[in-house]
Amino acid sequence: MAKFPPVHEQMRILMRGVDFGDEQTYVNMERELRERLEESYNTGRPLKVYCGYDPSSPDLHLGHTITMRKLRQFQDLGHDVTFLIGTFTGIIGDPSDKESVRKQQTLEEALAKAKTYAEQAWRILDPEKTRVRYNHEWLSKLTFGDVIQLASHFTVQQFLARDNFQKRYQNGDAIWLHEFFYALMQGYDAVALETDVQIGGTDQLFNLMAGRKLMEAFGLRPQVVLTSPILVGTDGVMRMSKSAGNYIGIDEPPGVIFTKVLNVPDTAMRNYAELVTRWSQEEIDEMFRQIEAGTLDMRTFKHRLAREIVSIFHGEEAAEQAARDAARMHAGEAPSDAPTFQLQEALNIVELLHRAGLVKSKSEGRRLIQQGGVRINGETVADLDQVVQVPNGQELVIQAGKRKFLRVTRG
Amino acid sequence: MAKFPPVHEQMRILMRGVDFGDEQTYVNMERELRERLEESYNTGRPLKVYCGYDPSSPDLHLGHTITMRKLRQFQDLGHDVTFLIGTFTGIIGDPSDKESVRKQQTLEEALAKAKTYAEQAWRILDPEKTRVRYNHEWLSKLTFGDVIQLASHFTVQQFLARDNFQKRYQNGDAIWLHEFFYALMQGYDAVALETDVQIGGTDQLFNLMAGRKLMEAFGLRPQVVLTSPILVGTDGVMRMSKSAGNYIGIDEPPGVIFTKVLNVPDTAMRNYAELVTRWSQEEIDEMFRQIEAGTLDMRTFKHRLAREIVSIFHGEEAAEQAARDAARMHAGEAPSDAPTFQLQEALNIVELLHRAGLVKSKSEGRRLIQQGGVRINGETVADLDQVVQVPNGQELVIQAGKRKFLRVTRG
Repeated sequence: MAKFPPVHEQMRILMRGVDFGDEQTYVNMERELRERLEESYNTGRPLKVYCGYDPSSPDLHLGHTITMRKLRQFQDLGHDVTFLIGTFTGIIGDPSDKESVRKQQTLEEALAKAKTYAEQAWRILDPEKTRVRYNHEWLSKLTFGDVIQLASHFTVQQFLARDNFQKRYQNGDAIWLHEFFYALMQGYDAVALETDVQIGGTDQLFNLMAGRKLMEAFGLRPQVVLTSPILVGTDGVMRMSKSAGNYIGIDEPPGVIFTKVLNVPDTAMRNYAELVTRWSQEEIDEMFRQIEAGTLDMRTFKHRLAREIVSIFHGEEAAEQAARDAARMHAGEAPSDAPTFQLQEALNIVELLHRAGLVKSKSEGRRLIQQGGVRINGETVADLDQVVQVPNGQELVIQAGKRKFLRVTRG
Repeated sequence: MAKFPPVHEQMRILMRGVDFGDEQTYVNMERELRERLEESYNTGRPLKVYCGYDPSSPDLHLGHTITMRKLRQFQDLGHDVTFLIGTFTGIIGDPSDKESVRKQQTLEEALAKAKTYAEQAWRILDPEKTRVRYNHEWLSKLTFGDVIQLASHFTVQQFLARDNFQKRYQNGDAIWLHEFFYALMQGYDAVALETDVQIGGTDQLFNLMAGRKLMEAFGLRPQVVLTSPILVGTDGVMRMSKSAGNYIGIDEPPGVIFTKVLNVPDTAMRNYAELVTRWSQEEIDEMFRQIEAGTLDMRTFKHRLAREIVSIFHGEEAAEQAARDAARMHAGEAPSDAPTFQLQEALNIVELLHRAGLVKSKSEGRRLIQQGGVRINGETVADLDQVVQVPNGQELVIQAGKRKFLRVTRG
C-alpha cells in the first residue's frame, strides 16, 4: 500500500499556506485531514478533492492560482482532483466578497465564459489527471422542493451574521433573497461530488462549511475544508477579482503581466511574494529584511517578482524578454514586439492614433493627449493639432498610455 | 352585456367587511377593483378570483369561511372562482401568523389532508361553479433556476420588516431560510392562475402583494387583493388555526359546534358576530347595545350565536336540536343522540368508561375522574373504585368530560 507518500510528508505540503483566520478551525481541519489521509494511505483510496471557479469573466487570474496550486499539490501526491466550473453558481455570482449585489447572468453567458477556463487551468494543473465538471449538471436539475430542503438547514440569522451581509444590512443596502442561495448551491456541489476535501479562499469559509452541513444532512461524511489567504488586486487594497477589474489574467501576454506587477503598490508586495511565487518563506523574509535595511530597493524587488510571476505561467525565456521590454519602455523605446505603421505623408496626431488602432475613437485620442498620455520618441505631445511626419531614414516610436507602443516608419 | 349586476351594486357587496389595516391600500384596491369590474361588465368577461387554503389538518374551520363567503359572493355575481388547495405551500406552512417555525410535512401528507377539503368547501361554495386546483401542479415543477428568478425580486429586508419575522429576529429566535419561500410560492400561484383578484386574511397582505410584484415581473397585470379581518379562536385571543387547536371545524357535529361557541370568551363575541353570521351590522349593533344596557344577557346572546352558526353549516333543524341538547347537557341529561350501553352486572367505573369507549385508556379514565370530569346522573364521581350498577327499570346517564354522554341500561 505504498501508493501515497507518508502522511506526515503529505501534511507538511498540504497544510502549507493554509489559513482559516481562526485557530480552532485550523486545529479541527488539520486533525480531520490527517485522519482522512491516514485512511487513504491504509486503503490506497485517493481522496476526492475539488475547488470551484465561477466564470464571471473569460479569464482566470492570479488570485485563482493560489487554490489551483493547492489542487496541484493534491494531484502530485496521487489524489483525485476535480476542477469545478461554476456554470450554475455563476448565474448568481458569489456575494462572499461583495458589499453590493452582483448582476445576474444567464446560464448561456456563464457557459460561454467557461469555455476557456479549463484550457487556462492547464497552466497549473495536469490535464491527464484532472476531472473537469460543471455544476449546472446537478444544480439545474434541483426542483423547488429540493431547494426547500436545502434551505431548511440554515437560518436567516446565520447569513446575516456574515461580514459582507452584516455590513450591507447595517448600511440599509438591499440584500436580495437569491444572494442567500449561493451558499446552498456551493454546499450542494460538495454533496453531488461526494467530496473528501474542498479548497477555497478564506472568504469562502461560510460556503465551505455549508457544504459540511449539507453533506451531514444527506447522510454523507462532512468534507474537510482548506482555505488560503486572499490575493489583493493591482490596486493593492481590494481582493483581486474579475468584476473589480483589478486583476492579472494568467493568459495575458508576458509583457502585460510584467507591467501590471510593476504597478502593484509596494504595500501589497509581501502578499504577492507569499501567495504567487515559488520562493520559500526564508527567501522572502530575507528579501524584505534587505528592503527594510535599504540594501535592496523596492524597484529591483518588483522586477524580480514580475519576472518570477511571468516565468511561472509563460516560462523563463518569456520572462526575460518581458524584463528587457520593460526596460526599453521605461526608456521610451518600443518593446521588441511593438507593431509597425507605415506613414507616407504628414498626418495629424489624433488621426494617426486612430488609424493605427492605438485608440478606439478620435475623442479617446484627444482625451489621452490632454491627459499627457501620448509621447513621440519619449516627448509628451501637448498639442491636439500636432502634425506627425517621419524624417527620411528614421523611425518614430509613439507611446499611447502606459503599454501601447507603435513604430512609425516612412512608407 | 347585462350578464353581471351593475358595478356599484357589485362593489357594495364585495367591499363589505374588507379591511387592510391601512387606509391607502383600501383606497387603491377599491379603485382597482372598480376598474376591473367595469371592464368585466363592459366585455362580459367574468373575473378570475381565488383564495388558497393550506391543508395543515383535514378540516376546514370557521376562520376559513370568511374568505370562502367572499368567494361565494363573487360566484353569485357571475365571476369565475377557484378554490385553491395549497398542497405545495402546505409543505412549508405559512409562517404569516406564526411567531415560531412550523413543522414541515411531505407532499403526500398534504395531499391526504387535502382530500376532504373540497367536499367541505361545498358547505359554502357552489360545486357546479367552482374550480378546484392544487398548487403542487405548478410549484413542484419549478427548478432551482426558476426559484432564483422569483427570489431576485425580493430583499431580505422586506421580509424582516414583517411583524412576525421582526419579532422573532429581535427575540433572537431562529428564522429558517425556507420560511421566506412561502410568499414566493403564494405569489407564483397568482402568476400561474393569471388571476384578477386574490382573497385572503389581513395577515396575508404581504403574500398577496408578493403576487402583485411577481405578476408584474412576469408581464401580467397585477391582481387586485382583498383582505378580511382575522377570526380569533375558541380561546378568544389567538387567531383561529388548526395547528393551535383552538378551532371550530365546519364539519364537526352540530352539538360540538354549538358547545364550542358557547365556550368562546365573551370578549370575542363581536368578532364572531361580525365575521361568521348572516346578521346585518344593524342587528349586531342593536344586540350589543342591549348587552351593555343589561337588557340582554351574554348567555342568551351566546346561545343565539351558536344556533346561528350551526344553522349556517347544518341547517335550521340541526341548530334547534343542538340548542335543545345543550339545554339538557346543562341539566346533566344526555342529548337525544347519546349512545346506549347495556350493563348486565356491577362494574368498576373506570372499567365501564373504557369498555363503553368514552375514554381511550383506563389511565385516561382515572385521570378524568381525578379531575372531577365524570358524572353519574349529574353527580360527580369522586372515587376511582366506585362500582356502577343499574337499578331495575331505570337508566343511568354517564357524562365524561363536557361533551361525551352515555345512557346505561340494564342489559
